[in-house]
Amino acid sequence: MAGDSSVRSVARTLDLLDQFDHRHPFLSLREIVDQSGLPKTTVVRLLANLEARALVSVRSDGRYTLGAGMLRWVRMSAALWEVNDQTRACMRRVVDAFGETVNVYVRQDNVRMSIAQEEGTNTVRNVIEVGSPMPLWAGSSAKVLLTAAPDLIDELVEVNPDLDVAALRAGVEAASEAGYAVSEGERERGATAVSAPILSTDGRLVAALTISGPSPRLNGARLEDAIRVVTDAAKEISGFGLGSVEELL
Amino acid sequence: MAGDSSVRSVARTLDLLDQFDHRHPFLSLREIVDQSGLPKTTVVRLLANLEARALVSVRSDGRYTLGAGMLRWVRMSAALWEVNDQTRACMRRVVDAFGETVNVYVRQDNVRMSIAQEEGTNTVRNVIEVGSPMPLWAGSSAKVLLTAAPDLIDELVEVNPDLDVAALRAGVEAASEAGYAVSEGERERGATAVSAPILSTDGRLVAALTISGPSPRLNGARLEDAIRVVTDAAKEISGFGLGSVEELL
Repeated sequence: MAGDSSVRSVARTLDLLDQFDHRHPFLSLREIVDQSGLPKTTVVRLLANLEARALVSVRSDGRYTLGAGMLRWVRMSAALWEVNDQTRACMRRVVDAFGETVNVYVRQDNVRMSIAQEEGTNTVRNVIEVGSPMPLWAGSSAKVLLTAAPDLIDELVEVNPDLDVAALRAGVEAASEAGYAVSEGERERGATAVSAPILSTDGRLVAALTISGPSPRLNGARLEDAIRVVTDAAKEISGFGLGSVEELL
Repeated sequence: MAGDSSVRSVARTLDLLDQFDHRHPFLSLREIVDQSGLPKTTVVRLLANLEARALVSVRSDGRYTLGAGMLRWVRMSAALWEVNDQTRACMRRVVDAFGETVNVYVRQDNVRMSIAQEEGTNTVRNVIEVGSPMPLWAGSSAKVLLTAAPDLIDELVEVNPDLDVAALRAGVEAASEAGYAVSEGERERGATAVSAPILSTDGRLVAALTISGPSPRLNGARLEDAIRVVTDAAKEISGFGLGSVEELL
């Protein structure tokens, strides 16, 4: 089995699947080719592999989308990564009280991702894709998650050569001391987020609870409120735990 | 980009993901290696790729499972491939009346898979994995689905060299004439299934409705009942359609 080219093929195939998201559920071959930066013949071949496994599907209009074969992983991964009802209820209460989107972020290898989201009540709200890899070198949830894995900070230069390691380390240390972290426009301009640690029932930091929204709505006294609300809610969740998903974290 | 070895790597990677199902949510490295038939070093490398994308995750006990990154496809593929509430209600009524498991099968390339399932009420019941590829050369639903794609029959020898093409063709023709198909032990010994065609609102055959259960419970007069029930229910569903999923079929 060849080395680099094989690894690259796997990566390219999974990258193709990643092109489909809730904003782009249907893509033409042209769009997929353009976005991939690969030769059309390569894309056609990768898509044929995925189609044979029913992981992508072609509609009658010729556009591609995720195939029914994806369903084989849906129920299982949703069940594995589900937070318990108490956590959901707590997240919902935060949204009801505060209006902004709430997420539970976990670290997976050297990325972070939301495993649970309750959307804010405003029209302009911060909606991210649950299960989508997001950078561990930016954002308030990253800083909170890194307090439990400080050794990773140096490795992150590999994924982001421009990373200011010293600044990130200082941010992580500050989060550790304060018990929360704030980020403004680190990952996306105009977005502010506040995060606090969620501990498992056996006391490990397993996740970050995050309130996020447009920066103009999250500043001054309201930012102070957000910090208090997210810290209290994260403590509450830590009291009863996230449920069986803790075993995966 | 290398040809064969790259295609093989992609296939192997996706095969690894396929090892995880509801009966095997957690697998040790040893189990994954044994089941794959690949060298341990290869498996370790493939798993590392998947882990970096959060598509697999390692628990503290060292066992692997599906990663949180799977969630990025969960909501979208579940929504895309969802049958409408009327179809669900009809399936549920069949289960309530008849007791056996009901599935909606669709053809994807040269396999078939269930996109919706309502489990039977008996302890011994026929539960298959939604979204799992199943052979198009066996089973009552395959025969019904092939009535709309008879040209595929010859191609199926490629996936099953032992296939009796003439017998399958005769079975598909019989299904076309009768408006239903019955299979006993074709895919799994002791399992009987009855299927009838579901048409889209624009009159295309898009799916098969199937009742399946242990052969000792599905024979004689009760088999006749099953044929009547599944045919009536498939006609009812064809009347209102499966919903937006029809556009993908």
